Amino acid sequence: MKIRITGTGLYLPPKVEKSVHIADIIGKSSKWVEEKSGVKERRVSAIDVDKMGAIAGHEALQNGKSKIPDLIINASGVPKQTIPDTSVFLQKEMGFEGIPSFSIHSTCLSFITALHTASCLINAGSYKKILIISSDRGTIGRNFNEPESASLLGDGAASILVEQSNRSQTSELIYYIMRTWPSGYNLTEVRGGGTNKHPEDPNTLKDDNYFSMDGPAVYKIARKQVYKILLQTLKNTGLKKSDIDWVIPHQASGKAIEAFITVGGFKKEKVIDIIGEFGNCVAASVPMALSIAIKDKRIKRGDILLLIGTGAGLSTACALIRY
Amino acid sequence: MKIRITGTGLYLPPKVEKSVHIADIIGKSSKWVEEKSGVKERRVSAIDVDKMGAIAGHEALQNGKSKIPDLIINASGVPKQTIPDTSVFLQKEMGFEGIPSFSIHSTCLSFITALHTASCLINAGSYKKILIISSDRGTIGRNFNEPESASLLGDGAASILVEQSNRSQTSELIYYIMRTWPSGYNLTEVRGGGTNKHPEDPNTLKDDNYFSMDGPAVYKIARKQVYKILLQTLKNTGLKKSDIDWVIPHQASGKAIEAFITVGGFKKEKVIDIIGEFGNCVAASVPMALSIAIKDKRIKRGDILLLIGTGAGLSTACALIRY
Repeated sequence: MKIRITGTGLYLPPKVEKSVHIADIIGKSSKWVEEKSGVKERRVSAIDVDKMGAIAGHEALQNGKSKIPDLIINASGVPKQTIPDTSVFLQKEMGFEGIPSFSIHSTCLSFITALHTASCLINAGSYKKILIISSDRGTIGRNFNEPESASLLGDGAASILVEQSNRSQTSELIYYIMRTWPSGYNLTEVRGGGTNKHPEDPNTLKDDNYFSMDGPAVYKIARKQVYKILLQTLKNTGLKKSDIDWVIPHQASGKAIEAFITVGGFKKEKVIDIIGEFGNCVAASVPMALSIAIKDKRIKRGDILLLIGTGAGLSTACALIRY
Repeated sequence: MKIRITGTGLYLPPKVEKSVHIADIIGKSSKWVEEKSGVKERRVSAIDVDKMGAIAGHEALQNGKSKIPDLIINASGVPKQTIPDTSVFLQKEMGFEGIPSFSIHSTCLSFITALHTASCLINAGSYKKILIISSDRGTIGRNFNEPESASLLGDGAASILVEQSNRSQTSELIYYIMRTWPSGYNLTEVRGGGTNKHPEDPNTLKDDNYFSMDGPAVYKIARKQVYKILLQTLKNTGLKKSDIDWVIPHQASGKAIEAFITVGGFKKEKVIDIIGEFGNCVAASVPMALSIAIKDKRIKRGDILLLIGTGAGLSTACALIRY
């Protein structure tokens, strides 16, 4: 599909939280935090997800020189409220009125799912300029009684503008695949917030309202399933690993990023790695890594990018694009 | 876009709650309940949204003679949990593994948004058989201190299977439009459940976790904006009101349904009206009305259907399809 990322934007909250700070709270050493999670520091946002996302969204529109999108998709992992969906609040903070907007949710894969969906919406002629915003404030959901997952989460937002590429441009979505394995539904959860463990249900526990993850179990399944979709992508596109210029993984953990080198067989310098500096920013991780590598000019027009990762569910997905 | 609804399914919880029951709780008469909301009775589900939706989903697949979809979209108004997204739980309850799945959220318009999105995904060749499930259990979120909105909500689930129509079939998505007006963000809310009024935030009040609506204000904006998208749909398709065989509105309230006759100018017998029997079932209302009218054979192949309504945000949307 002939689509092109014409703008990117970022919001990196100014407040930096070092390992030593969270180590104190969870009763571990900063060495333990860094070794377990791969996270040396993370950002902690003082503003909510809608304001964070709106800053990233504005930057993507300015870069793209398209002041007004014709669709806004919120592609975040956790909402601002149950109702209305977060896209409404993003549009409100951006100062727009009347632009259609909705949310796509597949937890950490929301951005990759939204990019594919936006490509199909543009391909069908339904929209011309789609603004995708991923904004997550995972630090609010940290369970400090669960040291490993609490060490991982950070806050951040990123946004891209997607348009149709013209005839002289090579930009395209080359391939997309997603798989969901509900047998892993309880490996990564926030059980509260909906009908299952309603906030006013007396049976809802404090832990139900915080993030919970069985990291080793997720890693075990993810390593196998992510490798499978990688092989399928190469087979179905006829491309070799060496044709991929940049691997942009979901920043699940330090170990998950390393697996793209040790198991996936990619060169270290080709894998965009922001986990150490920003932690796991849920759905915002992939577009943050993408935006950072575009900003610092590692990614150039014509490069082939592999956006790939896992999400709660358990789901795996990847999108192969020519930038 | 050449798409066809090849299967429909329903789940109507067996427990019926009459006006007199809720009238007692909210301190009003059953006459007041029925006049204000237009709801004579509603269903109250004893099972959660995933089990409700899975029953509807199975029926849609059986009707469609397609036992396995290649994508499952959850298009509900309120999730089962914050993480993972509800599509995972729907797939789990249906007994599937490995089918890609995600959620689309635009509150009461989630189904209409998902139908349009599914059409674009099929049109792009990305999927062939998309199962859309809307399942809502609004009775859990009723605020009995807000008599008007508490009188409205009911539980229900519905599902459709969408496939490409073949050359000999006339089924298609003729037109789609959506608009979102964030100035109305606080007219319909569940403020809790996300980062804004987190369940563990001491400033989160009980009322924040329940449904809240300024019915008269929503009605005032909705009447005007829904009429606008109706006129735009007729103008852009060259169709007349009399060409539309069935109007399938979101069952927002008795008054909202009536407006399609008094303001919209449609004949009463052409407007599918299930509000009296089932109440406002959030995102499930539109596919429930659609499935019921297909089941009772009012809707026939070749009929032109207008799916139309409002959602929290405030958003308006409609999809015009040839069944």
